[in-house]
Amino acid sequence: MVNFTIIYVGNIKDKFFADAVAEYEKRIKGFCKLKNIEIKEKRPPDEPNEAQIKAILDAEGEKILSSIPQGAYKIALCVEGKKVTSEALSKMLTELPHKGFSEAVFIIGSSHGLADKVKSACDFRLSVSDMTFPHRLMRVILSEQLYRACTIEAQTGYHK
Amino acid sequence: MVNFTIIYVGNIKDKFFADAVAEYEKRIKGFCKLKNIEIKEKRPPDEPNEAQIKAILDAEGEKILSSIPQGAYKIALCVEGKKVTSEALSKMLTELPHKGFSEAVFIIGSSHGLADKVKSACDFRLSVSDMTFPHRLMRVILSEQLYRACTIEAQTGYHK
Repeated sequence: MVNFTIIYVGNIKDKFFADAVAEYEKRIKGFCKLKNIEIKEKRPPDEPNEAQIKAILDAEGEKILSSIPQGAYKIALCVEGKKVTSEALSKMLTELPHKGFSEAVFIIGSSHGLADKVKSACDFRLSVSDMTFPHRLMRVILSEQLYRACTIEAQTGYHK
Repeated sequence: MVNFTIIYVGNIKDKFFADAVAEYEKRIKGFCKLKNIEIKEKRPPDEPNEAQIKAILDAEGEKILSSIPQGAYKIALCVEGKKVTSEALSKMLTELPHKGFSEAVFIIGSSHGLADKVKSACDFRLSVSDMTFPHRLMRVILSEQLYRACTIEAQTGYHK
């Protein structure tokens, strides 16, 4: 399996979500390396207009782009991305080393989303759902899917 | 908003998922009534064959069908269902009372899924994702989406 880096804008305030992520990340580390990069979320003014949100996303986007490890395969999580099954995601990640990538970086934006320049700089845009989730819950879902991807490759029986 | 009943096969072993569900359900109760019906999951033998899984799903399915409140709008969660946005789900639930339904029941199967007879007895089959999630995580996702549906209708600003 390729190694994982997760770039996440914001922090996980809810203990239950933090504990869920910690549990899955502990399990993932039985299969590969995992690194977390947390980027500070900028607080928008109350009832921000479109230009204010864009300015915040652009500033967060600069920090994201400068945090991406060199040579990593870059995956942005965004609702308009491509939908794949858990098996297809596992296969994609398993095949990355054969394509010259030893690391996959997953990018989860802030509660306002991700700047277009980050999405277009990525190799793959991944959509989990047509539904909107809080980005903290999205981080739980991602960690579970990465653990699942590892178990699918290793055929441990977790995924059935 | 319509009232919610959630029928769930199994129990939530992980404290972090139980706490997440409890938090969202507490918030939902600020908007409407919510009732939980937990159905005992049948333990399959080790490495069950297809017939053994079908027998278990059928037995669980009988209990599910007899637990559905009379006159409720029935929604089965299954990967092959219809995908909707959070806004569309909210609109669907908001409109149910105008169609004569005061209650929506959501059905989450066991780790092996849901019997076909349950799916075909439902009014709507809802797919959150092409990805496979543990059913415990699916219950967290559902509770968050139901809370989100309430806030979309009430325009509280949670959903943005």
